[in-house]
Amino acid sequence: MRTCYTGEVNKDYLDQTVTLFGWVHRRRDHGGVIFIDLRDRAGLAQIVVDPDNVDAFATAEDIRNEYCVRITGLVRLRPEGTGNPELASGEIEILCREIEVLNASVTPPFQLDDDNLSETTRLTHRVLDLRRPQMQRNLMLRYRVSIEVRKYLDNLGFIDIETPMLTKSTPEGARDYLVPSRVNAGEFFALPQSPQLFKQMLMVSGFDRYYQITKCFRDEDLRADRQPEFTQIDCETSFLNEEQIREIFEGMIRHVFATVQQVQLPDSFPTMTWEEAMRRFGSDKPDLRVKLEFVDVADLMQDVDFKVFSAPANDPASRVVALRVPGGAGMPRSEIDAYTKFVGIYGARGLAYIKVNDAASIPEGLQSPIVKNIHPEALRAMIARCGAQSGDLIFFGADKIKVVNDAIGALRVKIGHSEFGREHGLFEDGWQPLWVVDFPMFEYDEEEGRYFAAHHPFTSPKDGHEDYLETDPSRALAKAYDMVLNGWEMGGGSVRIHRADVQSKVFRALNIGAEEARNKFGFLLDALQYGAPPHGGVAFGLDRLVTMMAGAESIRDVIAFPKTQRAQCLLTQAPSAVDEKQLRELHIRLRSAEVKQ
Amino acid sequence: MRTCYTGEVNKDYLDQTVTLFGWVHRRRDHGGVIFIDLRDRAGLAQIVVDPDNVDAFATAEDIRNEYCVRITGLVRLRPEGTGNPELASGEIEILCREIEVLNASVTPPFQLDDDNLSETTRLTHRVLDLRRPQMQRNLMLRYRVSIEVRKYLDNLGFIDIETPMLTKSTPEGARDYLVPSRVNAGEFFALPQSPQLFKQMLMVSGFDRYYQITKCFRDEDLRADRQPEFTQIDCETSFLNEEQIREIFEGMIRHVFATVQQVQLPDSFPTMTWEEAMRRFGSDKPDLRVKLEFVDVADLMQDVDFKVFSAPANDPASRVVALRVPGGAGMPRSEIDAYTKFVGIYGARGLAYIKVNDAASIPEGLQSPIVKNIHPEALRAMIARCGAQSGDLIFFGADKIKVVNDAIGALRVKIGHSEFGREHGLFEDGWQPLWVVDFPMFEYDEEEGRYFAAHHPFTSPKDGHEDYLETDPSRALAKAYDMVLNGWEMGGGSVRIHRADVQSKVFRALNIGAEEARNKFGFLLDALQYGAPPHGGVAFGLDRLVTMMAGAESIRDVIAFPKTQRAQCLLTQAPSAVDEKQLRELHIRLRSAEVKQ
Repeated sequence: MRTCYTGEVNKDYLDQTVTLFGWVHRRRDHGGVIFIDLRDRAGLAQIVVDPDNVDAFATAEDIRNEYCVRITGLVRLRPEGTGNPELASGEIEILCREIEVLNASVTPPFQLDDDNLSETTRLTHRVLDLRRPQMQRNLMLRYRVSIEVRKYLDNLGFIDIETPMLTKSTPEGARDYLVPSRVNAGEFFALPQSPQLFKQMLMVSGFDRYYQITKCFRDEDLRADRQPEFTQIDCETSFLNEEQIREIFEGMIRHVFATVQQVQLPDSFPTMTWEEAMRRFGSDKPDLRVKLEFVDVADLMQDVDFKVFSAPANDPASRVVALRVPGGAGMPRSEIDAYTKFVGIYGARGLAYIKVNDAASIPEGLQSPIVKNIHPEALRAMIARCGAQSGDLIFFGADKIKVVNDAIGALRVKIGHSEFGREHGLFEDGWQPLWVVDFPMFEYDEEEGRYFAAHHPFTSPKDGHEDYLETDPSRALAKAYDMVLNGWEMGGGSVRIHRADVQSKVFRALNIGAEEARNKFGFLLDALQYGAPPHGGVAFGLDRLVTMMAGAESIRDVIAFPKTQRAQCLLTQAPSAVDEKQLRELHIRLRSAEVKQ
Repeated sequence: MRTCYTGEVNKDYLDQTVTLFGWVHRRRDHGGVIFIDLRDRAGLAQIVVDPDNVDAFATAEDIRNEYCVRITGLVRLRPEGTGNPELASGEIEILCREIEVLNASVTPPFQLDDDNLSETTRLTHRVLDLRRPQMQRNLMLRYRVSIEVRKYLDNLGFIDIETPMLTKSTPEGARDYLVPSRVNAGEFFALPQSPQLFKQMLMVSGFDRYYQITKCFRDEDLRADRQPEFTQIDCETSFLNEEQIREIFEGMIRHVFATVQQVQLPDSFPTMTWEEAMRRFGSDKPDLRVKLEFVDVADLMQDVDFKVFSAPANDPASRVVALRVPGGAGMPRSEIDAYTKFVGIYGARGLAYIKVNDAASIPEGLQSPIVKNIHPEALRAMIARCGAQSGDLIFFGADKIKVVNDAIGALRVKIGHSEFGREHGLFEDGWQPLWVVDFPMFEYDEEEGRYFAAHHPFTSPKDGHEDYLETDPSRALAKAYDMVLNGWEMGGGSVRIHRADVQSKVFRALNIGAEEARNKFGFLLDALQYGAPPHGGVAFGLDRLVTMMAGAESIRDVIAFPKTQRAQCLLTQAPSAVDEKQLRELHIRLRSAEVKQ
């Protein structure tokens, strides 16, 4: 058996004989001596094979990269000046006494330390890709996060209860992955989009505090940070109110950061209403590291001679905002042009701006093609409201509310993260968590002409907002909350409806008739009738949390065997064609005309 | 917020005012006072509502079973002689000061303490069924088992790595559950039957010690103790041999029993070869609590005048065994008849027996219809080999090997567990774990005329057995082991093949051609080429382990939301029909002729 992990041999083992298992990371001849960097999951150690040791030397001469070997040898100090302070084992080396090849390796298709591999190469050869120290660190970090989550929740009396993977299809929200039933011909299971209803039923059953770290499934068109299957830290508790629930779960995130990364997050996360977040940052997940804010100026622009501003300023469905960039007057024209192009991605038809050369002399001190179209009084009021100083730059968004929020919200983040933003103090590094609260209950879908649940249809309205469900759903706010960290939504949750009558009202507001509600959610409505307790919870995206903590570029870098954006596994070649016999047993056939050959 | 769980209020809280949340388990009027048994997940407490407290009393009068309430009151001693020693709160009661109905309940469809509910009723109303104290205890036990497994493995450096749920279909062994792909028309994912290949690849990637408590799926015809989805404690480690691997994992089971149930399992589990287990007990999962053993007597019966014995005694594919039941001569005829019927289930065509009235006088002292057909020398040798004493009973099995093993193996267990067996010391209560080792590599399937992998095709042959793969597969033994506890298979595993050439030989022995092997397992064969380490592992069935520990009758009693034997969820009505639109998106259609309407 091994003495310790290869990466852990250090001066404590000096003059001892150790046995190590690992892979040959690098092998080089140097002055007639063979040096092997041996690697395992804990790191590297340097092995020295002397030509005096004839057997070991002969073996070492034949060894190539990625051979799996057992090495026994004496731990000694490296010669002065040859240490490697980056390694835990950097002060010592192991003088090889015995070496055994446990398994040879063909030449790998790439160097493990090549940082410029295409993702296709990496995912096709995932087994080798996972050997790379960065991937080892990422998955180790992921594990530490999950085990610390469990420790924290266990201490608070939460219990892990498994909910089914083969569940019922309820086509709301995202597309389900379906599983044809063999025993029940013509029927299908669905893979869970979340254990939402099961965890609510567990609360009704009296389990009081539940959690699960579990796979969820959504058959969506994949964006950069989505996977068909993803992992959720799913939690629910009874008898607590919104604030108490948030306190427990921000404590969990604090605990994880403190124990896994020795990072101390704030003692209490700030909360911000959804309304305020949208008003100030155009986003329900604002990156608070960026020190830029929206300033609404529609009321000042209603009577200007500039249709681009005055039209949205007079339309309640539109918004006119200014985004003051301190010190931005010096921003090069090319950068402004690039931003103009950038906001186009979000549907903005242009990007008006004003350079404030001299804030004391308006309009002369302002430089912009649009200044001439806006009367000085409006300019003066706008400059004052923005608090603009000489040397600042002001960008404008004027369009439908969603376009302005998306475009100027993205611009705000882009400028903050840019070299310019960092140099001008518009970006403050660190971890900036917050809770966004008081989300609207519903979002109106213009195309379909009906309301959809903003969170999900089991979310409780705020106290006093129940009547709005029938009178004016758009005014109803929800006991829903998202935890946001540096512009990423880490998790979200809500207090749930625990009364059958309120649940029915919400279904009505969503245009879900009594019969449809019974068909889809009858088991929940039934459960609510038997003394359902007040309850609520939260779900965190583990993939995303770990991606952030690892500083990784993609959630695929913190998942052992991820799918591509075409939802394929390049390693195993899944999905794949199956035997006709299998389809027959499942009572289905292919729509062959549509199937590629 | 609550002071503590209802079930935890005790004398420590005497004279204090406490706030409790829970459900009304029972309510009764007694001498003008209302008594409420309040229940939560921790247990019961007695609430007393005095008529002096007008508001609370009025509320309490309207309260019914399963209402969810908040109660505030003063903890006081129960009047002498009215304590309930079965409850943690049994010495005290709470004098109610305030009571708030958090949610009313309609009348439940059954009494929670009714122990005679049909399983259909229980699964249909699972939310209420889970409120029953036994189910609360079962799921709590399940949680404690899983968290202790994690603690143990974490301490040993095992890390939890998630493997995909949407994987590739490889139709070997059980039927796959398939998931049609929307993005890749005509292709399917399969839900994993186990993470076997992924955990092996993680070893090749150098993660060294892996575990996962994860769902696996098999679309089998369901037997009493099977579910379409089940939970596996799945583990793998590199660089250890068979014995070292077993030591780690019997330590895990020991840890779980010690911490969760304060049960000390043996310091070292006995091992028994598969050959010995089959020979002595006719089973690869012998229940060692039963003190009965097979005695092979074929060699003694080859020349007797009784075809029922002599025919199988002369057939190498058959077996003749005696099962001595100490003290069994007094067994009533009706019981013997019942056993004769019982072995018929396993294909035995009868059940020969001999009562040993006087062991010293043969054949006169033997009582049986068959004695006259067997010459005294054979009888004498048989009695001697069995060590039969006067007053014993001997049953016989004589048939094809499998029939004898199945029938007499089951008979052995049946007698041991019977009232007769317990009264006659044939059953020793307690936990009797063992490892069954040295399984054969292959089983020959007469019908298909080929070998199948006894464990799975990635299992390593024993040292020195590699050549048998090509010369005589039936002789090859495997580095495979099962952990057996009281006649149940708790888990099993093996050392895996880590060399591509050996893996190819095994595929050949299984009649899997090179092309087929590449199609199905190419990614594994590739992985083995890159310095795959020696590795092995084990998988435990969590459902079964917890069922045993809970003393439950069915694994359905330790799963929150199980499926019926028809693979249906009676609570949510899954599986169910889905929209035509969903099928169209998945490029499939129903084989409508076969579909029930």
